[in-house]
Amino acid sequence: MSEVCILSLGTALPGDPVDNATLVRRLGLPDQWEEWLAAFVGTLSRHLAIDLDTGAVRSSLSDLCTEAASLALRRSGRQAQDIDLVVLGTAAPEALVPTAASVVADRLGARGIPAYQLQSGCSGAYQAIGVAYQLMLTGRYRTALAIGGEVFAKFFDLGSDFTDMSTEDLLHYFLFGDGAGAAVLSTEPVSGSLRIESVRTELSGTERPPGQILNWFGPGDRNSGLRTAEEDYKAIEDLVPQLSEAMLSDLLAECDWEAGDIDYILPPQLSVEMTQRIVTQMKLPTATEVSCVRHLGNNGNAALFFQLEELARKICDGNSAVGIAIESSKWIKAALALRKI
Amino acid sequence: MSEVCILSLGTALPGDPVDNATLVRRLGLPDQWEEWLAAFVGTLSRHLAIDLDTGAVRSSLSDLCTEAASLALRRSGRQAQDIDLVVLGTAAPEALVPTAASVVADRLGARGIPAYQLQSGCSGAYQAIGVAYQLMLTGRYRTALAIGGEVFAKFFDLGSDFTDMSTEDLLHYFLFGDGAGAAVLSTEPVSGSLRIESVRTELSGTERPPGQILNWFGPGDRNSGLRTAEEDYKAIEDLVPQLSEAMLSDLLAECDWEAGDIDYILPPQLSVEMTQRIVTQMKLPTATEVSCVRHLGNNGNAALFFQLEELARKICDGNSAVGIAIESSKWIKAALALRKI
Repeated sequence: MSEVCILSLGTALPGDPVDNATLVRRLGLPDQWEEWLAAFVGTLSRHLAIDLDTGAVRSSLSDLCTEAASLALRRSGRQAQDIDLVVLGTAAPEALVPTAASVVADRLGARGIPAYQLQSGCSGAYQAIGVAYQLMLTGRYRTALAIGGEVFAKFFDLGSDFTDMSTEDLLHYFLFGDGAGAAVLSTEPVSGSLRIESVRTELSGTERPPGQILNWFGPGDRNSGLRTAEEDYKAIEDLVPQLSEAMLSDLLAECDWEAGDIDYILPPQLSVEMTQRIVTQMKLPTATEVSCVRHLGNNGNAALFFQLEELARKICDGNSAVGIAIESSKWIKAALALRKI
Repeated sequence: MSEVCILSLGTALPGDPVDNATLVRRLGLPDQWEEWLAAFVGTLSRHLAIDLDTGAVRSSLSDLCTEAASLALRRSGRQAQDIDLVVLGTAAPEALVPTAASVVADRLGARGIPAYQLQSGCSGAYQAIGVAYQLMLTGRYRTALAIGGEVFAKFFDLGSDFTDMSTEDLLHYFLFGDGAGAAVLSTEPVSGSLRIESVRTELSGTERPPGQILNWFGPGDRNSGLRTAEEDYKAIEDLVPQLSEAMLSDLLAECDWEAGDIDYILPPQLSVEMTQRIVTQMKLPTATEVSCVRHLGNNGNAALFFQLEELARKICDGNSAVGIAIESSKWIKAALALRKI
């Protein structure tokens, strides 16, 4: 068994898009923030699982992942009982146990199967698809659900004094978004589906400090003065383009493809500005960019599924696509190569 | 490639054992608690990563996992650069990102490899070994580290009013323990190692509410009134023995083994009382029990590695061993079959 295809995709978003003007107003920031975001970040809106008026979290990670997975399943023509493996990636678990992977599998009615949940950052969708893909290569599974989702809104502390917050910490509120996505993978090739040529994830963290830390707080940590989220945007700006190029070059070598063979590129989704810079630097003469960050923000483990959904609408028979992501906490490089069959 | 062996094991525990008398005194509970624990629970001590006087967490999950993994690696005779895969399971991540899997791989000096972290409960070590094992069956990896660990002490809220707490909530403080374990897996069979005959994990949660919930708190959840940890001990008592028997019977059928063929049984490690009841019910006429719960408590994703370490000291050539665990949150059944070669 050496072929695995993406049969279908599904995505889910909480509520209406929240534009920059609304968010700037809600956080009580100066109006200039809007211009500044448009000029230097590029993200125009995002969906949030939190109600900005009340602070209540409206959709859970399991809710969004179930919605996305149900849609993907319906589009695949498969039934819940056909699913023999679930792999879900997220940076933001809603509970430590039960996992969202278990809850989603349970809600869908997929029984007696392994349901793995990966704790993962921006390369998480690649990890989830990669683990499912490799497990399927053993011949033990025929139909798998790979799922990714985030409810970053739980990090929102709407009671904070935003006028006193550093620009770096405020940026978290604008860069990220919530959502979920899912793919049905099959070992039975179907015409019109996306065949996986390769998926790789490689830790390259050695000798570099974390570019991102998302803390987990139990009662023992609450009084520790630790910050919930920290990003080293300078390190991210420096390293992500360079790691993206390195990963692309390794992937092309593995697939025996040339830069000019690629029809679509799904770049990292940190911000519109970063994405454009990376795409330019990659020098792929024939590749069309597929990005969703402008209207969805960086929705972490969900992002790749939104990119794949858009790709699936555009891609023609025989075309190739490459996805690249970099997880900045410990600098995990990730790549995916696909061909429409 | 169809053979995977456990080459070596390593474990790590924080600080000295904390006995029941010390913990009863620290929480300000009546002395009768000690007798009651001895009679109905059986757990006599545990190791805690938290300093009971100051409340400070002394060892992080990454610290303990690195210690266990280094020891396993040293005992295997392999070098960090031989490791081509890391899979770590935990219920209690110290940060959401970077994952402990990334931090441990980084500290060991394992480079350019996938490092997956599974979010998992009491069947987590089975999931970590199971994912590593299956990924190795693809022929892509030769040497893997499977790791499991917990620092449950972060759930300890030493500022609580314990005299006002329900028996159920108080029990959390006595049943669980901290620790970590690791195994080096290899696709090159070595005489004297434990050959993996099967690893299975199966979600059986459908139509049953969670038996366990460990909540994750972001700022958005702190004010929600949710409890950090909830256990339905009644449901656990009812279901765990019955699910253990079902899983054992499936495993024996898969391996084509009879109950009388088993030399060692590694049972679920919730409490001494529960473990004994399950072992009795399993009716394995020739099997010696290998349990560590009496002196370590239930240390979740670490427990199996402590059991395996003890097994490895006892088991003779050609002997067989079976491990069983049940994750009670969504009732994940897990099993492992081994033979010493």
